[in-house]
Amino acid sequence: MAKQISGLFIVAQTPFTDDGALDLDSIDTLCDFYFKHGAAGLTVLGVAGEAAKLSTEESIAVVRRYVAHANGKPVIVGVSNSSVAQLATLTKEVMRVGAFGVMVAPPPGLKTEEDVLSYYAAVFKGIGDVPTVLQDFPFSTGVWMSVPTIARLIDRHPQIQAIKEEDIPSAAKITKLRAVLSRHVPILTGNNGVYLPQELSRGIEGPMAGFSYPEMLSGVHKLYSEGKVQEAHDLFDLYLPLLTYENQSQWGVAVRKEVLKRRGAIQSAAMRAPGPSLTPEDLKDIDLLVQRVEQAIARKEA
Amino acid sequence: MAKQISGLFIVAQTPFTDDGALDLDSIDTLCDFYFKHGAAGLTVLGVAGEAAKLSTEESIAVVRRYVAHANGKPVIVGVSNSSVAQLATLTKEVMRVGAFGVMVAPPPGLKTEEDVLSYYAAVFKGIGDVPTVLQDFPFSTGVWMSVPTIARLIDRHPQIQAIKEEDIPSAAKITKLRAVLSRHVPILTGNNGVYLPQELSRGIEGPMAGFSYPEMLSGVHKLYSEGKVQEAHDLFDLYLPLLTYENQSQWGVAVRKEVLKRRGAIQSAAMRAPGPSLTPEDLKDIDLLVQRVEQAIARKEA
Amino acid sequence: MAKQISGLFIVAQTPFTDDGALDLDSIDTLCDFYFKHGAAGLTVLGVAGEAAKLSTEESIAVVRRYVAHANGKPVIVGVSNSSVAQLATLTKEVMRVGAFGVMVAPPPGLKTEEDVLSYYAAVFKGIGDVPTVLQDFPFSTGVWMSVPTIARLIDRHPQIQAIKEEDIPSAAKITKLRAVLSRHVPILTGNNGVYLPQELSRGIEGPMAGFSYPEMLSGVHKLYSEGKVQEAHDLFDLYLPLLTYENQSQWGVAVRKEVLKRRGAIQSAAMRAPGPSLTPEDLKDIDLLVQRVEQAIARKEA
Amino acid sequence: MAKQISGLFIVAQTPFTDDGALDLDSIDTLCDFYFKHGAAGLTVLGVAGEAAKLSTEESIAVVRRYVAHANGKPVIVGVSNSSVAQLATLTKEVMRVGAFGVMVAPPPGLKTEEDVLSYYAAVFKGIGDVPTVLQDFPFSTGVWMSVPTIARLIDRHPQIQAIKEEDIPSAAKITKLRAVLSRHVPILTGNNGVYLPQELSRGIEGPMAGFSYPEMLSGVHKLYSEGKVQEAHDLFDLYLPLLTYENQSQWGVAVRKEVLKRRGAIQSAAMRAPGPSLTPEDLKDIDLLVQRVEQAIARKEA
Repeated sequence: MAKQISGLFIVAQTPFTDDGALDLDSIDTLCDFYFKHGAAGLTVLGVAGEAAKLSTEESIAVVRRYVAHANGKPVIVGVSNSSVAQLATLTKEVMRVGAFGVMVAPPPGLKTEEDVLSYYAAVFKGIGDVPTVLQDFPFSTGVWMSVPTIARLIDRHPQIQAIKEEDIPSAAKITKLRAVLSRHVPILTGNNGVYLPQELSRGIEGPMAGFSYPEMLSGVHKLYSEGKVQEAHDLFDLYLPLLTYENQSQWGVAVRKEVLKRRGAIQSAAMRAPGPSLTPEDLKDIDLLVQRVEQAIARKEA
Repeated sequence: MAKQISGLFIVAQTPFTDDGALDLDSIDTLCDFYFKHGAAGLTVLGVAGEAAKLSTEESIAVVRRYVAHANGKPVIVGVSNSSVAQLATLTKEVMRVGAFGVMVAPPPGLKTEEDVLSYYAAVFKGIGDVPTVLQDFPFSTGVWMSVPTIARLIDRHPQIQAIKEEDIPSAAKITKLRAVLSRHVPILTGNNGVYLPQELSRGIEGPMAGFSYPEMLSGVHKLYSEGKVQEAHDLFDLYLPLLTYENQSQWGVAVRKEVLKRRGAIQSAAMRAPGPSLTPEDLKDIDLLVQRVEQAIARKEA
Repeated sequence: MAKQISGLFIVAQTPFTDDGALDLDSIDTLCDFYFKHGAAGLTVLGVAGEAAKLSTEESIAVVRRYVAHANGKPVIVGVSNSSVAQLATLTKEVMRVGAFGVMVAPPPGLKTEEDVLSYYAAVFKGIGDVPTVLQDFPFSTGVWMSVPTIARLIDRHPQIQAIKEEDIPSAAKITKLRAVLSRHVPILTGNNGVYLPQELSRGIEGPMAGFSYPEMLSGVHKLYSEGKVQEAHDLFDLYLPLLTYENQSQWGVAVRKEVLKRRGAIQSAAMRAPGPSLTPEDLKDIDLLVQRVEQAIARKEA
Repeated sequence: MAKQISGLFIVAQTPFTDDGALDLDSIDTLCDFYFKHGAAGLTVLGVAGEAAKLSTEESIAVVRRYVAHANGKPVIVGVSNSSVAQLATLTKEVMRVGAFGVMVAPPPGLKTEEDVLSYYAAVFKGIGDVPTVLQDFPFSTGVWMSVPTIARLIDRHPQIQAIKEEDIPSAAKITKLRAVLSRHVPILTGNNGVYLPQELSRGIEGPMAGFSYPEMLSGVHKLYSEGKVQEAHDLFDLYLPLLTYENQSQWGVAVRKEVLKRRGAIQSAAMRAPGPSLTPEDLKDIDLLVQRVEQAIARKEA
């Protein structure tokens, strides 16, 4: 896995119909949309993918559909679970239907470094030789892993083929990790991409984030890789107002789905209950922000 | 359900072999042990039942075995899950194999009363007309439900047929609940039973706790029900030193399993990884406490 | 207080020398800088003001100096403290040296609405008739106050003359608050100002945030008040890349102080220990972002 | 300090009058009561001492009074504070009025080992050469310090002269600490003393807990020190039902103060607001438990 990780691994939404059923057909259109806008791979069943609202059967159905439509492009699957047994079962199933690898964040409730090390020992005993992304997202999990703890995990578990780093400040932590890790591990970053230019300046392999305009995430990565730093910033800044508005936790996912629907990528903007819904005032905010982004794009292309 | 809830609903362990496999045969002997020592019903797949370490298939196998061996006695199943879809799937499965009802605690991460009310609305929409125990255990879930919030849940959801109350101080909260609930809902209590006499004095229906000497829990309930308050305290106090030692979170479950093994109720004391294990020093503590309990029982019976 | 709250109440830094001593002289220059760039008032001793690192005597010295230099402009003082007695003592002292009012967030550890209501009852019993800003910042305090809870506080305590709202999504919560509060209470917003345009669209009185370019915060508020919505967004967007970079918790405060130093507002960028410090790589990020902001300003003014 | 720490360092209450004023006269009677019942020293201004409700001046007044009446016996003072500056100021003041040393727990909000190490570095830079008890109480602070982290603190800071260990399971952690610490550091234990016999079996120097019958805590320590293990357990078990009832967080402090008042140690059982109060039902529970303890004592002495 480690050699193939470069570029945008877009955090993919799970589409539902207005009444909360899985909308598998929209996975096909959304998948097309992501690859058309520069995704190198997909990250499905993450927090923003509403994984916690799916049954096990639904989770497998979603992965199977994404894999079928990805045409060989890599699909990483979030399998984080406080039950190692359930994590191992789901891992086996998603690898069987063609996943490229899995992503595992520590479950809420781990306290000390010793807890973290034992947890991952149990995970890798349970899943065996599956390529894994280690997700470091303390503001969501409540588990803070220090740089030395991550270094120990990397030493012990060759299955860890990439890190998704979303502690804050992310840029500083990336620099520290690069300085101490005993082998090269690709680093992808999240936080909805709001710190992407600085993270790229520290040498990451790409963004692993969701956004209703994936072409910004892939475009900024491409420009930065070509050494066009100012152009990368110019592109990033153009979309930043909408990106900021989407960067509001689970509620931001509702915004993102609304924009994805407007862009024709999915049929319905619905999130499955229990979840947020948008008010008329929220929709007016979105109208304004999308209009301004589209105008800025038009000006730039003119 | 509400009419049938009275007496000890023992929190049942999940037995494993020394190498971590499910030990279904030990469920039979443990089940016999519980009923022989006065249990009115069973509570399986709770936190102390290591539910979070089982795959879905294993969970169903455990419930099926307990139900088969319970001879018609009620089996309540813990199905708490941050995924309402997974909760609903598991509920359907365990009701199909004969569960008496389910128990649902709010998942970590709910913040305000509004969050709690929406969560349970989604749960009952998902599971329908299944008798449910509402578990109030804030020190484990991190979700604090006030008395008015619980009262609202009771008003809205007739499926809630009992409350497991383990906030602290439990006795005071029970008295407040009794004063405001709009219908009579049986209250069972946990916290490993360490506050049982005071909780009984507030009129609860019984304990829903685990202990390696279930005869204490059932006996104290019986004596209290007969108005023999001092005798109830005498019995409780006799076992309290061991009960206190077991009352140490997940580590205390390792102690309990060790004593259950010594008493012949299960084949192995092992907890599944990741979990605590006992040291030689811990075993010496247990030797002493069990010896003292056994001597006290002998003195009392003499 | 309520009638006088409108415009930018800048969250003021506490300046230190490189060796961690209070730098009272820099308060004068910083104060001038804030008012020159459009502040209507000051908010001192907030979280970003490193209040938790000051002794009580230092806190009072800081307030006295800010008040002396503010020339009658209002100075609101953060006095949040888990000790109501210490909160009351500090409130008395800062009102004595000329504060306009105080700001009180609920201390970590409050769980239910009942806890929140009792806490504020004790606060207002302790401080009496002092104009108070109620701060709702759950991601920092860990205390989630629902809209009905805030409405109850507003009903019970006429001393609450304003709300600082920084729950997420802030805009949606502001609309809900406006719909249910029984009297008009000015609402100011924080989160470093990253959602300011949307918050203004919901009718807030102004920002209560910190930023190294306060002229953006005051300017956006002014344009919005004049109905110049697109111009307000234009101004906001110009500064958003740097604002986003500053919006990284306590570490972001180090960035802000660095830029304030470069702009001549304070002598040293040091934060008092224990606190973050900037690396050479971080300084390079700042160089680039500040340069881009300055170029954008120049382009705009050209 | 390290050489003088042995025996019961009772966690002392702060007495208030019924209307919430400090009751300094009751400090004298309570102090006499503690020493008459075997205390070797005092621990004042702990969590159970309602430290968080006192102003700085009150805190100093309480310490001064305790020191004046302790007749040279050691008085350890809790000074934990998220503000290192305030911690240092209070430490200086309490050492000036005769404290034997201070106790410092990590403030809520520290996440990784690196955070903990920086925090204590700042503390010892601020307070200098003052003998200090390191308090490890994660269920109250939310900060989990692993055994290696504590070992590093002991290596770096010779000022740490004792550890108060109240993680769970405490006995197991004590054994691990003894195995790795690079120098002998006395260990005292809390958790209201409910695990005292097992902690003594691991070689601790004594309890640092509060209880309305301090003679139990000192007596159990004495018997254990003399090798009379069974007698120590007998004494402990006699009081355990009341001890358990007191072991209910801040609410348990209300119970303890009620019993201390009944025993003539303080004038009023009041806790300062915001805090719990006892209902008539609670008082009946206490009546019964105290009566049973007194009868058991009488039986034993007969």
